[in-house]
Amino acid sequence: MATIFLYEIAGTAMLTLLGGGVVANVILGKTKGNAGGWLLINFGWGLAVFAGVYTAYKTGAHINPAVTVGLLASGAPEYAPGIAVNFGNTIAYFLAELIGAFIGAVLAWLSYKNHYDHETDAGTILGTFSTGPEIRHRGWNLVTEIIATFVLVFIIVMFGNTPSGLGPLAVALLVVSIGASLGGPTGYAINPARDLGPRLAHAILPIPHKGGSDWGYSWVPIVGPLIGGALGGLVGAAL
Amino acid sequence: MATIFLYEIAGTAMLTLLGGGVVANVILGKTKGNAGGWLLINFGWGLAVFAGVYTAYKTGAHINPAVTVGLLASGAPEYAPGIAVNFGNTIAYFLAELIGAFIGAVLAWLSYKNHYDHETDAGTILGTFSTGPEIRHRGWNLVTEIIATFVLVFIIVMFGNTPSGLGPLAVALLVVSIGASLGGPTGYAINPARDLGPRLAHAILPIPHKGGSDWGYSWVPIVGPLIGGALGGLVGAAL
Amino acid sequence: MATIFLYEIAGTAMLTLLGGGVVANVILGKTKGNAGGWLLINFGWGLAVFAGVYTAYKTGAHINPAVTVGLLASGAPEYAPGIAVNFGNTIAYFLAELIGAFIGAVLAWLSYKNHYDHETDAGTILGTFSTGPEIRHRGWNLVTEIIATFVLVFIIVMFGNTPSGLGPLAVALLVVSIGASLGGPTGYAINPARDLGPRLAHAILPIPHKGGSDWGYSWVPIVGPLIGGALGGLVGAAL
Amino acid sequence: MATIFLYEIAGTAMLTLLGGGVVANVILGKTKGNAGGWLLINFGWGLAVFAGVYTAYKTGAHINPAVTVGLLASGAPEYAPGIAVNFGNTIAYFLAELIGAFIGAVLAWLSYKNHYDHETDAGTILGTFSTGPEIRHRGWNLVTEIIATFVLVFIIVMFGNTPSGLGPLAVALLVVSIGASLGGPTGYAINPARDLGPRLAHAILPIPHKGGSDWGYSWVPIVGPLIGGALGGLVGAAL
Repeated sequence: MATIFLYEIAGTAMLTLLGGGVVANVILGKTKGNAGGWLLINFGWGLAVFAGVYTAYKTGAHINPAVTVGLLASGAPEYAPGIAVNFGNTIAYFLAELIGAFIGAVLAWLSYKNHYDHETDAGTILGTFSTGPEIRHRGWNLVTEIIATFVLVFIIVMFGNTPSGLGPLAVALLVVSIGASLGGPTGYAINPARDLGPRLAHAILPIPHKGGSDWGYSWVPIVGPLIGGALGGLVGAAL
Repeated sequence: MATIFLYEIAGTAMLTLLGGGVVANVILGKTKGNAGGWLLINFGWGLAVFAGVYTAYKTGAHINPAVTVGLLASGAPEYAPGIAVNFGNTIAYFLAELIGAFIGAVLAWLSYKNHYDHETDAGTILGTFSTGPEIRHRGWNLVTEIIATFVLVFIIVMFGNTPSGLGPLAVALLVVSIGASLGGPTGYAINPARDLGPRLAHAILPIPHKGGSDWGYSWVPIVGPLIGGALGGLVGAAL
Repeated sequence: MATIFLYEIAGTAMLTLLGGGVVANVILGKTKGNAGGWLLINFGWGLAVFAGVYTAYKTGAHINPAVTVGLLASGAPEYAPGIAVNFGNTIAYFLAELIGAFIGAVLAWLSYKNHYDHETDAGTILGTFSTGPEIRHRGWNLVTEIIATFVLVFIIVMFGNTPSGLGPLAVALLVVSIGASLGGPTGYAINPARDLGPRLAHAILPIPHKGGSDWGYSWVPIVGPLIGGALGGLVGAAL
Repeated sequence: MATIFLYEIAGTAMLTLLGGGVVANVILGKTKGNAGGWLLINFGWGLAVFAGVYTAYKTGAHINPAVTVGLLASGAPEYAPGIAVNFGNTIAYFLAELIGAFIGAVLAWLSYKNHYDHETDAGTILGTFSTGPEIRHRGWNLVTEIIATFVLVFIIVMFGNTPSGLGPLAVALLVVSIGASLGGPTGYAINPARDLGPRLAHAILPIPHKGGSDWGYSWVPIVGPLIGGALGGLVGAAL
């Protein structure tokens, strides 16, 4: 269980450090990547997954509770070689993912400290931590997150059927794809820890012009990915 | 034959969910990827193929009637390991590809439901479902689709000569290439199902400001890819 | 020798069809990729090489006289498995590359026929066929082409020292790199056939508003790449 | 030791030729890639690493003193197969990396000679050689460089745990990632030689409108990467 904590915390921290970093680069003021576009964000998040998966390879590189839930739903006997699917390990993955996501968000904030201190728009600041919809409608926002996370977990399960030497690159490209194609409405949380961990960091960190942490929306990027991940695991296992 | 239906429907649905999604993201209003550029669309469609090929790997991952026709023209003995080239299987591929493409388009619409409800331009709405030319001239538009699909199927056949560990990534990059290079005039259908399935979805779905489904153009992205695919299979087999 | 002609013509035609196509898409009017940016052109040309290398794999996929010259200079015993380095084969490669590049340019023109007919700027039309410098200074333009082609051939020779499963993708990414980094001054011909073949096509094809084919500059993208390729082969072989 | 010099000089020269080249292409005037965006710079630098790693593969392809220091800190017995970790070799790597970075910067300047001669903004000229922060605050700039270089070296060490056939592409994509995500505040030196070598070239080369070489900032992209690299090596070895 210590192995799960060690690697999943490290991997998820890499994920939200690099993922939060690219959003900070694109939307905070006075950065070199300011207004760099959606494809830059998509590659940034995709490659954040790339780095996170290498980091957490020994524990199966979930770095996402929706993946953990998807594997649980798929009936897989192990979460990773040598790590059984059981209640204790499931909780360990969830906690490690959340703690790692929190740590990564703090590191991203430290990396962009000067830029956070200069930023005066509260919505922009929150946007570098957590996802939020462009058109707020919790029902349809939930649908979008369910479909996007279904694709993530379903295709990950399908990877097993195809021989290829891509390793972590395959997941990275899948996340680029989901961001490019299904990230438009809600910003593709597709990972409850990726959204909740940084939102907690946002609530706690001393950032000059930050506003509220939008807790009224916070359940959508938790519940949607968990449902989508479970469905993806179920359907993937059936195919 | 049930295997063909199962995997080709699932794979082609992934293709048009992610492919339709990226176009919706770039051209519908109030999305995070709005006006994200042609390269974003190219990577979105290329990686849609990536996901679709992983999904349908067991049936050879045609997910495109032009590929099915190309394999038929090439004289290959099997459509995939264990699936003979015969009349029944050919029709099964065609139907599955069309059904899958329809389903994917519906899922993309559900993912972007709020944005479709806010969109008032009929041409933009149709553009997220089906292809259309920038300069309408059915003869030259057909030429463009024939050449682009020839490249797709010809290079797929040539993949067999080269050892490399890329797997589905090779096809994905080929589709990025065709989109970047030959997609300018007509929007690179290069796949009759990818165009007709979503066009049927457009005709049926209850979208507030949609206009007609442009059936007068609809034969071009069917006939062109079938001709180009057959030529690509023939020439590829001859080399 | 027929094998060289067959595969090198086909491969170089794929190269200039897709390479010319992406430039047409970005700079001709009324296309979907209009003003799509330099990175789109870089990926377009890089993936054009990707397709060309798969096509011509059996003959070593030179598709570029500078590569042929570089291999000659490197002292390699064979141009490809079973194809000796000798005078006749060298000329066969050169001719096949030039013929293929011409054919590809014609196919790109056919693909964008409507857009060529609408284009009224002669410089834009020529720019879709051949390279031209942003600041005309034949001496320094030559230096740029020599350095860029040196990098191409030198790194291709170095590929042999490193085990990796990328196959044609490695060359494709190298060409993306050279375009992004060294293409700014002259448009990175880095291949005499890629420039001369399409320039001949430009001179011959009936395009409404085309101007001259800028023969006064045409020797730079021939001589520069041949010098750079020879140097790259020599230095690569020495390392 | 001659092997270290030969390959690390060549590899680091490729790195700063292609890396400096892409920045010159994007920020100098009258280039084809002018204003091409941050993602273009990220891919340009990532693929510069790609080319550099192929070049220096025989000596482990450090091409970065922070990597050398990271391997030293990790307790690895060898810098590359057959090259022991000892004082003399460590100094040889440092010197070779610095000399190579200087040479690459001179080659990039030669490639863009016309454009340097036309450029009148001193800050733009320096920006094509060395990094500089968007918001100058040496303490936080140092933090950013430490975190970014930690990620680089830590993930490189973690690569060893994961089987994949990507070879140099994995490092290239990691550098694209770091640039996209953590390059916003300081321009991601993450390599003391990459910054100091070109800064020396800037100080020496006869460029019409160049200003000072900003030596007051020059220690940040040296000290930060060395600290970050050492930490990355230590933590990576512990995991």
